[in-house]
Formats: sequence, structure tokens, C-alpha cells
Amino acid sequence: MKEAFRKIAAMMHQAEPEAHFAFEFGDGERLCYGGSIHSPDVTLRFKSPEACRRIIADGFLGFGEAYMDGDIELDGDLPELLRLGMRIGFDQRSPSPWQRILFWAYRVFARNNRSHASQNVSHHYDRGEDFYSLYLDPTMTYSCAYFRNPDDSLERAQVQKYDHIARKLLLKPGETLLDIGCGWGGMLFHAAGNYGVSALGNTVSMPQYDYIQEKRKELGLENKIRVILEDYRNLDGKFDKVVSIGMFEHVGRKFIPAFMRRVNGLLKDGGLGLLHTIGRDKASSGDPWTWKYIFPGYYIPALDEIVREMGAAGFSVCDVENLRLHYARTLDLWAENFERNADEVRRMFDDRFVRMWRLYLRGSSASFKYGELRVFQVLFSKGLSGDLPTTRDYVYS
Amino acid sequence: MKEAFRKIAAMMHQAEPEAHFAFEFGDGERLCYGGSIHSPDVTLRFKSPEACRRIIADGFLGFGEAYMDGDIELDGDLPELLRLGMRIGFDQRSPSPWQRILFWAYRVFARNNRSHASQNVSHHYDRGEDFYSLYLDPTMTYSCAYFRNPDDSLERAQVQKYDHIARKLLLKPGETLLDIGCGWGGMLFHAAGNYGVSALGNTVSMPQYDYIQEKRKELGLENKIRVILEDYRNLDGKFDKVVSIGMFEHVGRKFIPAFMRRVNGLLKDGGLGLLHTIGRDKASSGDPWTWKYIFPGYYIPALDEIVREMGAAGFSVCDVENLRLHYARTLDLWAENFERNADEVRRMFDDRFVRMWRLYLRGSSASFKYGELRVFQVLFSKGLSGDLPTTRDYVYS
Repeated sequence: MKEAFRKIAAMMHQAEPEAHFAFEFGDGERLCYGGSIHSPDVTLRFKSPEACRRIIADGFLGFGEAYMDGDIELDGDLPELLRLGMRIGFDQRSPSPWQRILFWAYRVFARNNRSHASQNVSHHYDRGEDFYSLYLDPTMTYSCAYFRNPDDSLERAQVQKYDHIARKLLLKPGETLLDIGCGWGGMLFHAAGNYGVSALGNTVSMPQYDYIQEKRKELGLENKIRVILEDYRNLDGKFDKVVSIGMFEHVGRKFIPAFMRRVNGLLKDGGLGLLHTIGRDKASSGDPWTWKYIFPGYYIPALDEIVREMGAAGFSVCDVENLRLHYARTLDLWAENFERNADEVRRMFDDRFVRMWRLYLRGSSASFKYGELRVFQVLFSKGLSGDLPTTRDYVYS
Repeated sequence: MKEAFRKIAAMMHQAEPEAHFAFEFGDGERLCYGGSIHSPDVTLRFKSPEACRRIIADGFLGFGEAYMDGDIELDGDLPELLRLGMRIGFDQRSPSPWQRILFWAYRVFARNNRSHASQNVSHHYDRGEDFYSLYLDPTMTYSCAYFRNPDDSLERAQVQKYDHIARKLLLKPGETLLDIGCGWGGMLFHAAGNYGVSALGNTVSMPQYDYIQEKRKELGLENKIRVILEDYRNLDGKFDKVVSIGMFEHVGRKFIPAFMRRVNGLLKDGGLGLLHTIGRDKASSGDPWTWKYIFPGYYIPALDEIVREMGAAGFSVCDVENLRLHYARTLDLWAENFERNADEVRRMFDDRFVRMWRLYLRGSSASFKYGELRVFQVLFSKGLSGDLPTTRDYVYS
């Protein structure tokens, strides 16, 4: 097992000769690359031979579980270790055949039909706003922000994201907007408050539903905003504009065509829609650790799967923007907030949870910076839109 | 046959009750919809019962051939008739089984391997600059322009297109740029003259090659611009940036993966590329009339086919813009130029050619406005680009 790690370390060194890192095996042996043995940027310490074995056998799943269980410890810079791992494609390494069968079984049984989808989403989001408010910004936005300037605050960048979308969609007073999977309602509040639209959102998470019901009264927007506790498949009505931000990842591969058909049914002829979602350049079934611990039922679609099913449903793709580095920055700011409040999270859950969530935030950030994850905003029309300006200057003026 | 046309006319009227059009059957019968019988915007006159039969049997292919042969005549507004036809999906109507077999055989035998591709392209482009200069702008650009303002001249809009692409690609002095299928060199001259890059273009058309050789000397750009008479599959070298404008339509469906791999081999790691091509929202084998008379071997790809093969080749999609109405405007201006010079075209070829080319220009314009055609500019990087700004403001400032 140590031999395998010597190889991994050598590959990392070859890919990034400047990187200063060390592996400690607990038996006195220490491998150090890229600088003095005394102060590497990151040191990975194996607390047991078992930890080595799990990582070699199960790739990132094994690494994640060993890290959660404290079988490995990290001194220094976790993002740097993740960066090095991605540079050598360690995140793409397959888990053992046994874990692959388990993962396959998960994917078959944790299907995103109406009842499972709700359970899968509850798994993540029903931890409640007490927890999420420990690291999200005050708008409680749980998706990629939009940084016009690199030093924008997280809150400012989230508001800018909503505004960027509102501009792309040409929102106008009196129009109706549907937000599919509205989270804590950030888009609803921005669009109704600043663009005068009548906005409807749906969520399958009760805490999110309660939060929005409360806030719309506080803000005096009862007439402009409605929220319903309902799966997207049960929505009806016809809307001028439709948006979905950071929800599509939970739809699942099999349900992409049905999702598009449903959106088509909800949008007026010639109406504009915007899908904001994590995506990939190349289809992949994703990462078993994330599936098992963070987002059961998730599927990160490839861009071609998105636009193919849009075309099949009768949409025309007007514009695609890739915002991957905006999500990396968003996640880094979340991770900083999270670390500031780690003691409180530990009290709410336990240390294993803290380590799990840290790896989720830092690992995702690294995947946007160095790995396979992208964020796509896809603007589309139902049939052909007559309203859309012929150049994109309108978004930037 | 007349019964079938009565149905078609009724469908057109139902789809567009305001449209004022007439069908004349040559036996005294006249169908008129949407206004007085005296001055319809467009009248379609059948010169023989055979014309009716060809159109019903072979859809747009039959219509096109009957129009070329003078078996039908049009008074008034051809674009209006094309618009009405597309509103009822007449352009999507299948030709007869016999014509479908012929079309299939064409597609099998007119394969775009190296020797056929060159013949296919010669079929269209080797008519020479004497002909094309009768309707293109002075830059001899034979692809979709970019109208920042609706009343921009064609020449101005073509230069703006090159500039829009140069900005998206972040062209910088001293960089190397490859233009795959460079036509009459418009992008080469703009990029070398205004951005200081060293530009190489390839074409398989001898007249285009000669034209560029001449012009680079005239402009004193011999050191900055090179052109080679070569299929894209024979290119080599490594370039900072790669562009391909209005050439991908000739690659053919089967060769899309090979095209992307070739481009990948020609681009430096982290380098940017831009593919400017006609596309669709949904895959289709295209229109037999266009294949037979205008572009043998052509294939208009769906957006999902483009981005899927980009992902498979190791590219990451950064940005997609849909410019369909810019191509409609471009084609309308070409058609106006063409009509002004129709007598000269008739002298160069014959009346059948004039009618064929008119239908090609007007039919294409209608397809961008009302039908299935799109123009996509897809900006991509080889692997991940570190240079690309995180917002698209840089294109518009």
C-alpha cells in the first residue's frame, strides 16, 4: 500500500514540481516533495494502514470516508491537496468493484420519482436554516454567485447573480415568473422587489417553504410572491418567464426529458427561460462519495445532454455562459464562513459531520477550479422569441 | 392535386389570417386568402399540372425544382411565401420515397473524405470571385455578419463580426492564429491588421487561395499572413488560437469527431478556439434541394452534436451565442445585391441559375427567421483556460 502512495506522490510531484507536500505513514516514514521537509504546505498523515488500503481501493470515496472517520489527518492546506489530486486525475479513479456495484444499486433504487426525489432533497436541505445560515450569505442563496469584481462580498455577488439572470430574461413589470426549485426564495424576492413581476416558486423542503412564507409577509410582498410546497412535476399554469437555479442537479439523468417537457408546458409560446445548473463537458455518472454523503440522487448533466433535451422539447437555445470560477469563489467563501462557525456546527452535529462538510465544500471548489465541474446558464426560448435583442449588449449596459 | 393545394392554402390562412396570398392554377381557378382578390402580397402560379404534382410529391425539393424550371411563377413577395410555407412546416415535408432513396444514396456516396470534400466545396466556391463579388460585401465575407445596429452596412457588419470574434478570442500581438477554412481571408486580414497576430489560413478552393496571396502582398501583410491550399486534415503545427467561420457546415456529420480531434491537436494547452457555424436545435439530415443544388455534402449540426464532440475531444465550452437573426439580415442584404446584379448573373450562367440562387438566398433567410436554422458561435478552451476573464463584459466594453 505504501508503494502505491509513493507512486501517487511521485505523480503529483511530476505534475506540479513546485508543490510542497508530504505524506506521513505513522511508522516513522515520511515522503516529502518540492521543498524542505520541515514546513510543507500540506501534510497527509495516515493514522492506520487501513486508511491507506481504503484510499487505494476506493479512490475519492475511500479518501472521503477515511477523512471523515479520522483515519487520515491533514496538516495545512486541504485545497492544495485536492488540487494536486485533481492534477493527477485521482478524483476520476474508480472505486473497487464492490463499491461500484453498491453505487449502481444506489442509483437504481434511489430513483428521483416523486416520493424519492422529495426524500433525497430533504436529506440535504432539511438540515434547516439554522445550519445553512452559518455559512450562506444573508439572502440564504445556495447556488453559484456572480462576481462582477473579484472582491465583491458574497451577498453582493448573490444579488448580482439574480440581477444577471433578471436581465438575461428581460423581466418586466406585470410579467409572471416561475422559479422551479426556489430554495429560500432569493430570486423571487429580487425579481418581485426590483422588476415588479408576479413570482411563483416551488420547493419540496418544508423549512424553505416556511421561511419564504414568513419573509414575504415581512417584506410586504404577499401580493407579488407565492410559494408552494410541491414537486415540479405537479406544477401547472402558464408563465411569461421560467427560471431554475441550482435545482436541475437533483432531477436525475432519466428525468431530464420529462423535466424539459414539463417546463415547456409551463412556459408561454415565445417565452424565455433560464436554466442555471452545475454541468460537465463530458457525461459522467459522478462521484460515489458525494452521492452517498451529500446529494443522494444527484446527477450533474453534460452540456450536450441539456441542450439536446431542450431541442427535443421544442426550445431554442439563445445563449450559454460558463461560470465555473464563480462557483469556486462562492464555495471558498462558504468554506471560510463554515470554518469560522465550525464549533457551532460540531455542537449541532458532530466532528465527523464537520469533516464531511468541509471536504464537500473544499472538494467542490477544487472541482470547479481544476476538475470536471462547470456552471452553465442556458437561456432558451419556447419556439422562437421575438423579444430578445439581437446582441447581448443589453445584459451588460 | 389541386385539392392538396386547397388544403395547404387553408392551413396557411389558419396559421396567418392576416397574410394576403393567392394560388393560380392556370385553368382559370384562383384561390385567394386574407384580402381582396386583386393585389395579394404574393401569388403562386402553376404553369402546368405537373408542377402541382412535383410539389406535392417532393415537398421543398419539388417546389425548388419547379421554380428553377419555370413550372411555377411567383408574382410579388417570395420571402412572404417562404414564411407562410415555414409557418405550416412545409419545409419539413418529406420528399417522395424515391427521392428519399436518391438523397440517401447521395449522402452515402458524396462522402466528405479528403478527395470528395474538395470536390464538394469546389462545386460551390469555385464559381470565382467575379460571381461572388456581385452580392458579397467588399471584404468578400461569405458567412453571417454581426449587426451592432440594424442599419449597419453589410461591410461594416462583417468587420464587426471579425472584431466580435477577435475580442472573444482575446487576440494579442505576437500570438499565432489558425483560421480553418478561411474563405477569402477576411478574418486573417482583420486579425493580422488590427490585432498584430501571425495568421495562417487554409482553403481547398484555388480562386480563394489566389485571391489571398494577391491581397496580402497588396496590403504589405506578407510577414503576418500565410495561406495554404490544403484540406484541414492535413494541417499541422500548434497555435495559440484557432477559429473556424462558416466552414464546419461542410465537414459532414460523420467527420465531426475527427474534426474536433484535429482542432485539439492544432491548439496549445489552455488555448482558446471559436467555432462559428450554422446549427440547429434538433438534429436533422437537412434539405435535399439544398444538398442537390447548393451545398453537396453539407450537414448542419445540432448544438448538442457540436458540444458533445467538443467535450469528447478534451475541450471545455466557455460561451455559446446564437446569432440567427444576424444571418437572416445578412442573407436579405445579399439577396438585394443579387437582384440588382441579376442580369449580369444571367449572362454568366442562365436564368435557371438565377432562380436557383434566388431561392437559396431567400429560402435560407426565411429558415433563420421562421424555421430551423441557427448560427452558433461556440467559444471553447483546450482543457481549462486561465486567461479568460470570468465575466463577458470584456467582449462588450
